Amino acid sequence: MNGATPEFDLIGRYFTRRSRRADTVLGIGDDAALIQPPQGSWLVATTDTMVCGTHFLPDADPRDLGHKLLAVNLSDLAAMGADPAWLTLALTLPHIDHEWLTAFSAGLFTLAETVDAELIGGDITRGPLACTLQALGTVPADRALRRAGAKPGDGIYVSGTLGDAALALALRLEGSGVPAALAERLDRPTPRIALGRALREWASAAIDLSDGLLADLGHLCASSGVGATILQADVPRSTAFRSAARGALDADLPLNGGDDYELCFTMPEHHAARVEALTHATGCPITRIGCITTEPGVRCHDAAGEPMAVTRSGFDHFNPAAP
Amino acid sequence: MNGATPEFDLIGRYFTRRSRRADTVLGIGDDAALIQPPQGSWLVATTDTMVCGTHFLPDADPRDLGHKLLAVNLSDLAAMGADPAWLTLALTLPHIDHEWLTAFSAGLFTLAETVDAELIGGDITRGPLACTLQALGTVPADRALRRAGAKPGDGIYVSGTLGDAALALALRLEGSGVPAALAERLDRPTPRIALGRALREWASAAIDLSDGLLADLGHLCASSGVGATILQADVPRSTAFRSAARGALDADLPLNGGDDYELCFTMPEHHAARVEALTHATGCPITRIGCITTEPGVRCHDAAGEPMAVTRSGFDHFNPAAP
Repeated sequence: MNGATPEFDLIGRYFTRRSRRADTVLGIGDDAALIQPPQGSWLVATTDTMVCGTHFLPDADPRDLGHKLLAVNLSDLAAMGADPAWLTLALTLPHIDHEWLTAFSAGLFTLAETVDAELIGGDITRGPLACTLQALGTVPADRALRRAGAKPGDGIYVSGTLGDAALALALRLEGSGVPAALAERLDRPTPRIALGRALREWASAAIDLSDGLLADLGHLCASSGVGATILQADVPRSTAFRSAARGALDADLPLNGGDDYELCFTMPEHHAARVEALTHATGCPITRIGCITTEPGVRCHDAAGEPMAVTRSGFDHFNPAAP
Repeated sequence: MNGATPEFDLIGRYFTRRSRRADTVLGIGDDAALIQPPQGSWLVATTDTMVCGTHFLPDADPRDLGHKLLAVNLSDLAAMGADPAWLTLALTLPHIDHEWLTAFSAGLFTLAETVDAELIGGDITRGPLACTLQALGTVPADRALRRAGAKPGDGIYVSGTLGDAALALALRLEGSGVPAALAERLDRPTPRIALGRALREWASAAIDLSDGLLADLGHLCASSGVGATILQADVPRSTAFRSAARGALDADLPLNGGDDYELCFTMPEHHAARVEALTHATGCPITRIGCITTEPGVRCHDAAGEPMAVTRSGFDHFNPAAP
């Protein structure tokens, strides 16, 4: 962290809040922050960047940006079963825009406070608009969820509904009206913190869905040394998605659209009866979409039980037109 | 962390090394990394961003960039007396340039390995060239150095020499030849990790010099609720600086130039005899430049003991032409 005068002022004005966590020894305002991790816990660390022109449009609502930047990082923590704890923010701005900073910081802090995460440091620099957050969480030692651990026969589950954000983006990019329920899913995703925490006890593996179900489930399978078969008809789609989707054009979005920030996890069959209690405890719908197989690769079957030809590329920012 | 295919490939190819630390439970390759902080320690967290066009020129040597990005973060850890441990990297690239990535990662890892810091996670995105590193270190509980803690009567010390990097930048920007010794100080600064660690026992306060001595000493004094008087003639300048400096034009650089990445610290007078042993133990020159006063503010005296009119603005990226 640097302390040049205007940066110093911006940090003080927009990003310094009274410390909320007893285990934060020293927050913003020194060369670095000091934190006291809980004994018997592991720390969980992740980082994600959002760049103007790549991840959001120049006219994006800064309050939504602040929310989403944190949400995508919290989604990674959720996929590990972690409790969020500390954040650092690196913000690059083309110029100082107080209205923008007020809204961005409000979006960030509003979500941070709901999960007891504290901003403990950061860096504000001049340049093309971009923001990077690093999130630290805690998890009891040996209890973290990983991508590795799925076993043949385990059920495959996803939280919430898939494809909403991708459909919202597709509609927005073509200039069509975007139903509010879909826009909310794109602009203000809900990280599944409570579900991730609850799954520590039951899941054999987990991943968050940011690149699309097939791509991310493929990563989980590769890490676990297994494969998967899912039923397309079981992949949960929201009412808003079903209303707004344009038939075959959007049918692929729940499988490959990305930006869902739901959890995909596997659970041994003898825990299958837990799903109802997990849904009840976390308020988060959970749907079984298939099962883990010995044979590698991810296969998708249609309603007739026939294998479907599906891509599993995920979204490629370096090559957006790739199939 | 995301896992879209090309990003996944780049991380595997350039940024995944065999784990070197026993306390890294899970490094790159899952939704987040898992680390096991040492018992009885605090964690120290900092982040710094370098943006093309603001912090470096488009033709900057990527090996130097990788080194410097890590060095500036390690300098913050050093100022807290911390031992470096874990790193996360957020890299934004306009396109995939394998030669650039090879050199950048080599610069980063070469320095990281000298201090036993391990890269445990990251995010690679497309956009204007910029890089953000987040560094985590450890320090025994209650032994961290802070900006607060300086007392009236304490001596004020700096490591190494000041102004070298600022002079190198001034010469480079005007197209003059830059002596190698000065260029090295600008492009490949040496974080004072060993000194920071040694100072845990003796220093009353510390800060790293990134914005210029007067600005950063001002921050230390403000945090400590004290002031400072320094003697300009005692501010250490290198032989290379003395040879290349253009008289009055560059006289201000050791005071206000910035980018030094040396430590400025305070020490009670009864520890003053420790300086020789600290220099010997850390291989780092240490110079006494003044003392802490009750009166707030930073005052600089010339060789005749007269107060000098000095600015203490530090460098302002949002307003580079500011006085």
